[in-house]
Amino acid sequence: MYTYDYLFNFTQEVFEKMGCPAEDAAKTAKVFLAAELRGLPSHGMIRIKDYYQLWEAQRINTRPNIRIVHETPSTAVVDGDGAVGMIAATRSMEIAMEKAEKCGTGWVSTRGSNHYGIAGYYAMMALEKDMIGMSMTNANPLVAPAGSVSRMMGTNPIAVAVPAGKYPAYVADFATTPIARGKLAVAEKKGEMVAEGYVQDKDGNPSTDPSILKEGGSMLPLGGDMAHGLHKGYCLSTMVDIFSCVFSGANFGPFCPPSVAFLPMPKVQVGSGTGHFFGAMRIDSWQPKEEFKAQMDKWIETYKSAQPAKGVERVMIPGEPEREKEERILRDGIAVIPAIAQDMKEIADKLGIEFTIQ
Amino acid sequence: MYTYDYLFNFTQEVFEKMGCPAEDAAKTAKVFLAAELRGLPSHGMIRIKDYYQLWEAQRINTRPNIRIVHETPSTAVVDGDGAVGMIAATRSMEIAMEKAEKCGTGWVSTRGSNHYGIAGYYAMMALEKDMIGMSMTNANPLVAPAGSVSRMMGTNPIAVAVPAGKYPAYVADFATTPIARGKLAVAEKKGEMVAEGYVQDKDGNPSTDPSILKEGGSMLPLGGDMAHGLHKGYCLSTMVDIFSCVFSGANFGPFCPPSVAFLPMPKVQVGSGTGHFFGAMRIDSWQPKEEFKAQMDKWIETYKSAQPAKGVERVMIPGEPEREKEERILRDGIAVIPAIAQDMKEIADKLGIEFTIQ
Repeated sequence: MYTYDYLFNFTQEVFEKMGCPAEDAAKTAKVFLAAELRGLPSHGMIRIKDYYQLWEAQRINTRPNIRIVHETPSTAVVDGDGAVGMIAATRSMEIAMEKAEKCGTGWVSTRGSNHYGIAGYYAMMALEKDMIGMSMTNANPLVAPAGSVSRMMGTNPIAVAVPAGKYPAYVADFATTPIARGKLAVAEKKGEMVAEGYVQDKDGNPSTDPSILKEGGSMLPLGGDMAHGLHKGYCLSTMVDIFSCVFSGANFGPFCPPSVAFLPMPKVQVGSGTGHFFGAMRIDSWQPKEEFKAQMDKWIETYKSAQPAKGVERVMIPGEPEREKEERILRDGIAVIPAIAQDMKEIADKLGIEFTIQ
Repeated sequence: MYTYDYLFNFTQEVFEKMGCPAEDAAKTAKVFLAAELRGLPSHGMIRIKDYYQLWEAQRINTRPNIRIVHETPSTAVVDGDGAVGMIAATRSMEIAMEKAEKCGTGWVSTRGSNHYGIAGYYAMMALEKDMIGMSMTNANPLVAPAGSVSRMMGTNPIAVAVPAGKYPAYVADFATTPIARGKLAVAEKKGEMVAEGYVQDKDGNPSTDPSILKEGGSMLPLGGDMAHGLHKGYCLSTMVDIFSCVFSGANFGPFCPPSVAFLPMPKVQVGSGTGHFFGAMRIDSWQPKEEFKAQMDKWIETYKSAQPAKGVERVMIPGEPEREKEERILRDGIAVIPAIAQDMKEIADKLGIEFTIQ
């Protein structure tokens, strides 16, 4: 088990050694650690190696000139200049909040970025300013459109955070596929089959074999099959792609640059880097602050009073499971599996920093 | 078969006779007919009787004072004053577009409204102004939160329309449940069973019986079961509820007023009427107009070039199936099933207007 501070300092040091200013490295570490705390290790320490290798391959700019390239009072297009995704995204969300301060809401579409970690982090940045936050991103193409076998879309997550009063905030953060890519990878490593509706083979036949992705198979959008509204998952995923990439001028759909160095850059580029979309809305754009929070509390109480199904302990509000994990993990420490700790040690040695496998 | 004009004029006359100004009645008819053309008769002629009965029960205000009650440069809260939903919604979307004209984007949350027909209509209003349109609404509570058996949420649809250049616009319009309420009702009338993942019984056991809703059962959110991301559908549905009702001060979740007169008004109200949410973003908030449209065309070409699965003719862009239906229905005429035509005839007789069953 590692403490939060130990992994935070390590991550910050790694990014500093790769050339990031200290402040940027700290911001990046904060997002990596947020993934670990919220029980999403697929977006945590495991990705440090990916970032290190992208940097080695000169596919990351650790001294970027992140700037607004087009704007209106409530919107901005931000060019991340090839930055670490967490840096481009944090700055973009800050701009969205600055816009919201002035005109009620702020909306930013970002290009020239890279993998930004967990979507929920940026949405939650809005909470401390009494704002509603939103965040979306495109990602490596693995998911097929409805009725297709081509890998066109990422698992394109959507996150929404809404402040409440006496209760913790509402935080929805979910991929627009039935299952996260990371969970498929785990099943594959264990040699386990998965439920139908997650993946299909190269001809579009249903499959329960997670390794089918290596044989031309693809992931399916939320819904899983046409009878269960897979075309709705396709709508959600494409909406994220358009807002993140067509709005900003990033590489949409199948052109999204890989977030790992062992995959080559796509030969064709239709824009610049990976794209994200961010939104911020002041709660007092809608109702006086205290009224908004009181009504949100009443909303939470109403949903929490829903009757649990047989065998379910209690009905949860979006964000509640992750918050409980966060409390537990902060208390008990962060587990890093041996193979990933080994990768971290190797990176530490190469960069000349300390890392002790625990 | 009825012509578009015949049903349009009939619908307009009905709403005029109920007291709507001619312009409002025409706007309402336009939304009703849009549902028929887009192949969604569950939101078309069948609902005229519901509206007529709500008016008889004095639960609709046909001379409303629709007004902005709170605003910022990019947002407004609109009070529909008990209006026909189509009128409150059309005016709200106009306000969103006026805001977008001035500051790039405009966002409106509406309370004191009623059932507004198809979500996609309002999103598509933005297209003629070279804007991206969004629309959401809450609805009668039939859907259970993840892990619950209580009917808390409506089928809460989300619609997004994005203009393109030489191709027709991208139009996503979908309920946040695997299947529409109307399709369940059809299966029930035919005595047919449905797939698992649509409904559950009063204890939360999976069910394939659409009539289970009459025995304390509930509909399930998009995803259908936990293994297929039903908690993500729960997130989507609650997001719609919060944006439409907490933002505006409408009746959220289980407090949504029924859109039919045979169900009594809920005894407890936590706000005013039904709630909606609308968004408009100028495409030139993001990119110069021609560049935006050219990139959206490239986006459409890319997705249309996806390889179809075995047995699928071609991959479709969201909105394409409905547009094809619209062309066909405009050409061939609108079919109205005898029972509904009979209802329309009765309403015509009561209001003293013409209607010939065809």
